[in-house]
Amino acid sequence: MMAGVNASAAFASDNAAPAHPAVLEAVIAANQDPAMSYGSDDITSRAAALIRETFDSPHAEVLFALTGTGANVIALTAATRPWHAILCSDIAHSLVDEAGGPVRLSGAMLTVLPSDDGLIDPAALAAHAARRGSVHHSQPSIVTITQSTENGRLWRADAIKEFVDEAHHQGLLVHVDGARIANAVAALGVSPLEAMGDADIVTVGGTKNGLLFGDAILVRRPERFDGIRFVHKQIGHLPSKHRFVSAQFEALFTAGRWLELAAHANTMAARLAAGFVERGLTLASPTEANEVFVLLEPELHARVAARFAVHAPDPQRPVYRFVCSWATTDREVDAVLDLLR
Amino acid sequence: MMAGVNASAAFASDNAAPAHPAVLEAVIAANQDPAMSYGSDDITSRAAALIRETFDSPHAEVLFALTGTGANVIALTAATRPWHAILCSDIAHSLVDEAGGPVRLSGAMLTVLPSDDGLIDPAALAAHAARRGSVHHSQPSIVTITQSTENGRLWRADAIKEFVDEAHHQGLLVHVDGARIANAVAALGVSPLEAMGDADIVTVGGTKNGLLFGDAILVRRPERFDGIRFVHKQIGHLPSKHRFVSAQFEALFTAGRWLELAAHANTMAARLAAGFVERGLTLASPTEANEVFVLLEPELHARVAARFAVHAPDPQRPVYRFVCSWATTDREVDAVLDLLR
Amino acid sequence: MMAGVNASAAFASDNAAPAHPAVLEAVIAANQDPAMSYGSDDITSRAAALIRETFDSPHAEVLFALTGTGANVIALTAATRPWHAILCSDIAHSLVDEAGGPVRLSGAMLTVLPSDDGLIDPAALAAHAARRGSVHHSQPSIVTITQSTENGRLWRADAIKEFVDEAHHQGLLVHVDGARIANAVAALGVSPLEAMGDADIVTVGGTKNGLLFGDAILVRRPERFDGIRFVHKQIGHLPSKHRFVSAQFEALFTAGRWLELAAHANTMAARLAAGFVERGLTLASPTEANEVFVLLEPELHARVAARFAVHAPDPQRPVYRFVCSWATTDREVDAVLDLLR
Amino acid sequence: MMAGVNASAAFASDNAAPAHPAVLEAVIAANQDPAMSYGSDDITSRAAALIRETFDSPHAEVLFALTGTGANVIALTAATRPWHAILCSDIAHSLVDEAGGPVRLSGAMLTVLPSDDGLIDPAALAAHAARRGSVHHSQPSIVTITQSTENGRLWRADAIKEFVDEAHHQGLLVHVDGARIANAVAALGVSPLEAMGDADIVTVGGTKNGLLFGDAILVRRPERFDGIRFVHKQIGHLPSKHRFVSAQFEALFTAGRWLELAAHANTMAARLAAGFVERGLTLASPTEANEVFVLLEPELHARVAARFAVHAPDPQRPVYRFVCSWATTDREVDAVLDLLR
Repeated sequence: MMAGVNASAAFASDNAAPAHPAVLEAVIAANQDPAMSYGSDDITSRAAALIRETFDSPHAEVLFALTGTGANVIALTAATRPWHAILCSDIAHSLVDEAGGPVRLSGAMLTVLPSDDGLIDPAALAAHAARRGSVHHSQPSIVTITQSTENGRLWRADAIKEFVDEAHHQGLLVHVDGARIANAVAALGVSPLEAMGDADIVTVGGTKNGLLFGDAILVRRPERFDGIRFVHKQIGHLPSKHRFVSAQFEALFTAGRWLELAAHANTMAARLAAGFVERGLTLASPTEANEVFVLLEPELHARVAARFAVHAPDPQRPVYRFVCSWATTDREVDAVLDLLR
Repeated sequence: MMAGVNASAAFASDNAAPAHPAVLEAVIAANQDPAMSYGSDDITSRAAALIRETFDSPHAEVLFALTGTGANVIALTAATRPWHAILCSDIAHSLVDEAGGPVRLSGAMLTVLPSDDGLIDPAALAAHAARRGSVHHSQPSIVTITQSTENGRLWRADAIKEFVDEAHHQGLLVHVDGARIANAVAALGVSPLEAMGDADIVTVGGTKNGLLFGDAILVRRPERFDGIRFVHKQIGHLPSKHRFVSAQFEALFTAGRWLELAAHANTMAARLAAGFVERGLTLASPTEANEVFVLLEPELHARVAARFAVHAPDPQRPVYRFVCSWATTDREVDAVLDLLR
Repeated sequence: MMAGVNASAAFASDNAAPAHPAVLEAVIAANQDPAMSYGSDDITSRAAALIRETFDSPHAEVLFALTGTGANVIALTAATRPWHAILCSDIAHSLVDEAGGPVRLSGAMLTVLPSDDGLIDPAALAAHAARRGSVHHSQPSIVTITQSTENGRLWRADAIKEFVDEAHHQGLLVHVDGARIANAVAALGVSPLEAMGDADIVTVGGTKNGLLFGDAILVRRPERFDGIRFVHKQIGHLPSKHRFVSAQFEALFTAGRWLELAAHANTMAARLAAGFVERGLTLASPTEANEVFVLLEPELHARVAARFAVHAPDPQRPVYRFVCSWATTDREVDAVLDLLR
Repeated sequence: MMAGVNASAAFASDNAAPAHPAVLEAVIAANQDPAMSYGSDDITSRAAALIRETFDSPHAEVLFALTGTGANVIALTAATRPWHAILCSDIAHSLVDEAGGPVRLSGAMLTVLPSDDGLIDPAALAAHAARRGSVHHSQPSIVTITQSTENGRLWRADAIKEFVDEAHHQGLLVHVDGARIANAVAALGVSPLEAMGDADIVTVGGTKNGLLFGDAILVRRPERFDGIRFVHKQIGHLPSKHRFVSAQFEALFTAGRWLELAAHANTMAARLAAGFVERGLTLASPTEANEVFVLLEPELHARVAARFAVHAPDPQRPVYRFVCSWATTDREVDAVLDLLR
């Protein structure tokens, strides 16, 4: 991430954004009197109930993790035994950006499936079931997909349904890394549940959608993830002052705020992408949610980088990523586009 | 933890307290504009510098973890290889209250040393060095002690110096679990560095001393903890919006606030303990910092428990723990003592 | 283990002995023609059947490991999840002499119970069940005991029955480290099954009882050890030329040879112990199987050590261990006793 | 592996072969008198010296493991920390056939490089060094290659030199899985050292080349594999009666026997491959060492399988593997070829 010394982080990532004022107000409101710790407080109960309701998953367990990496590592570890394999795409956050945490903690292998910007063909799953039962081979137990994907693509409702059904047919559990599931639901215009198929466990992003910190874990089939609360505790994601993470989620999932914030981010990304195309630039991936990937010549990139920090995800190609958030302004979008005139 | 439905959490733990207003204000102040993530922001640099300065450790690395369990697990894991042993007291938080996290993540064994309320005789260390070098035996590499201890006791400056020196003499690293190191420094009236001897790595508590969440890791000999930043990332303790944990620490370590808050908690505990003794009750451990352990007959305990949740740490004895915090009031102390009249 | 340059290994350990001729003959006989690998050969089926029959465990699974440490590590790992605790005595081989292998591989904690020479009071188990279910604490799942113990003591049939029953009552599985179970059965004069109570999984020693190498794992409740075959494979204890370990076990468990060899070792130990006592020496533990622990003054120890290598298990006391095997001769016993005249 | 009930295992694998008579004689000769355990015996010293000499590696440490999987798991684990990545080919035994053991024990990720029958282009290594140093990404630390490869191909001396040099240039260690390195050396006609380039650690196969069991680990740069002896002990690959594995290696590496046996296996494979081609069949991979991969129509395969068990390594294609060993006879080769007439 090369950038000018005073470059703005406005497009560096959606995790560069501040927290939404309503979220901060909820934390302030929660900061009264002593409260029982480790989640046995009322705010936590209410936040968990809201998330179950939002995702139409009345029997789900809800845990709160402090970071997205934490949430993914806990979910994948609880799904696996150390002779299992976790299937994932070639650009999965769990594979590329978590320092090998899921492997270290679970002892399971990460097995890579080819993908189109993170979208995996369900037909790719069958081959991995072939060696099931033989003690010589790692046993695939779960596949993880990301909605919206790391390259800003969407699993359409029918596509994710087909994928999850095929995974279940192959005896695999399904994890959805929903660090940006709000952006997906807002963009797809389907119900939150439709956006995750019938996944077994879901990381529900908060950090990138206006919180100070926090990603929830929605355990839709708790009986398949026994021990998850121990994993959660063991790596320090059960905060004692638990109400301060729960209060943020309560604020986010009240009155549709989570979708409102995400929709704004998507709109800004669409404006930015349209502006890029108008200026004759090439998008490296279709812009479907809140991330824009564009190819920039060195001279253009230098011009942008002096003002805005942007991430270059691919060491091999001059692709640059612009991420919009709930806080992105029209003025910031215009500023980028003006630089490229 | 049996308690009446409407019992107050005022003495349940210092982690039941709210955050200090100055800490919240710092979070609000940090919530401006986008900022670069993962700790490459100015607030994080300033907070780390303040902690290095406070503990007179100019060459230390400072990492921030989101919970005390997280901080301990990261510190102990970074100190060990999976054929090592971690020496600890029989009441160590790392042994008893972290669900085996340090063992799971490090692969190292926890070896228990006898203690007096968590205070270990340095002479106990030598025996464990006897089998060094033989491939048949786990190799002790680090000893962890707690300041102030889980039973509210203090390591005096000369005692901790002697202990750390002997550990180093035996070729062991020393970790200090300082979840309540502020209480220790405030009570001992020595410099922060004297309160930790010449320890190699220290968990510097924040959560129990007025933060929303967060415990720092002071790596005083970074060359002995290579890889600690990977461990930290792998288990999800590197938050993207890092400034929100750093800002809290900056507020805490500015203008001696950390000691002011801790001293108040200690004073309240001393008042409570004195009141217990005055009422003819027996303390299970001397009250030296902010925790009071008292023996209560069933009838008395029932009377207290209807109004205040208190922890019973020992399944074998009717010992009850009252923890005071920065937020404990005289009125709350009086309310407990009134119940025992 | 200090010893003269040309000191004999005759009493250093029962693993210093050669293999019994009948065992070698079985290997030679198995070395005909190509055979299917990884245990799908007839010799393996026969050896497993013999072990099931010997221990009256018709529904057991039998696996073969290449060493006793391998067998223990596999058994304990298959019994545990990484938030569990394994209870053991203070002198357990798994705790002291396996370089922390059971902890590293399982991720579970080893929790030490006090013992009399490895014999544990069943009353010690209850305390550890108290914290079951709380995510803050490691969850005890199995207790491991050793028959005969590391100090050469015997669990009497009624004592082991009582212990195993109490463990089951507390919801714990039981592992018996039977590296020297042959010596125990031979000494106790009870059935092999009575000597192991109703244990759930047993390491059945071969190496120390006349094999070239090899310890079996008798999985008496396979449904509680799912995945054990993967653990076994993952750490390289599934040999391709499997018949060569199976053939040895077939020879050992045919026509009562295993007890005949063990009884001889016990007899030699009894003679040695009686001789020590006759010479006015003090035994550090009663001699009940094939190991003799005796206290020796420096001068006497030096005299012995010039001729015979002997192990000093306790860094704190001048206790020396003499182990007899199937191959120990009267002449060797006499030679030791002559030195002490 | 479908085969007729009475099918011969002659071509199922080189690990289906019996042990060579000279190896058995060495075991018998070693079976005299008690001997000090765990490798502190003379035979072990001599065997290690022979291996160092054979591979012209005077400063190497030599350890003996009981299986090839054990040797690979120990070598890769000792080379890595749990935030590392191990690079390997898409058909590596460590990836495909060890049940995920290297991942479970090391905690490191296996990262797959494309290959031609296991032969990897050195240019593929550079890309993986790009993310070195960033805490977000697994850090590649070692690459493992197989000589001869799992598909029976050879790394020529200049190719392996170039590969190892490039790996070192990229800051990577190199492991050679030499389960069949004898076949490679015999086929290449170069020195044993030239056949492994300047690799840092090598699994030296014994089991597949005439032993009862046993694969050695040649640690050519011991300073880069600290702790390897603990890993080796922890998973039970340090046998107490160590002389019985060492004696086999001494017999194998005396008077060039290891190459003589391997050359015979190669010759038999060449005859078989030539016969297949003569009969109009297609080889799936060139036959360069002792493994022959041939495409067979169902009818032909059925004819073979009634008499000879053969492995089908690829679930997607009708490829069958015939492995020759030191014990393969001309008569057996003729019998296969006759079936295909």
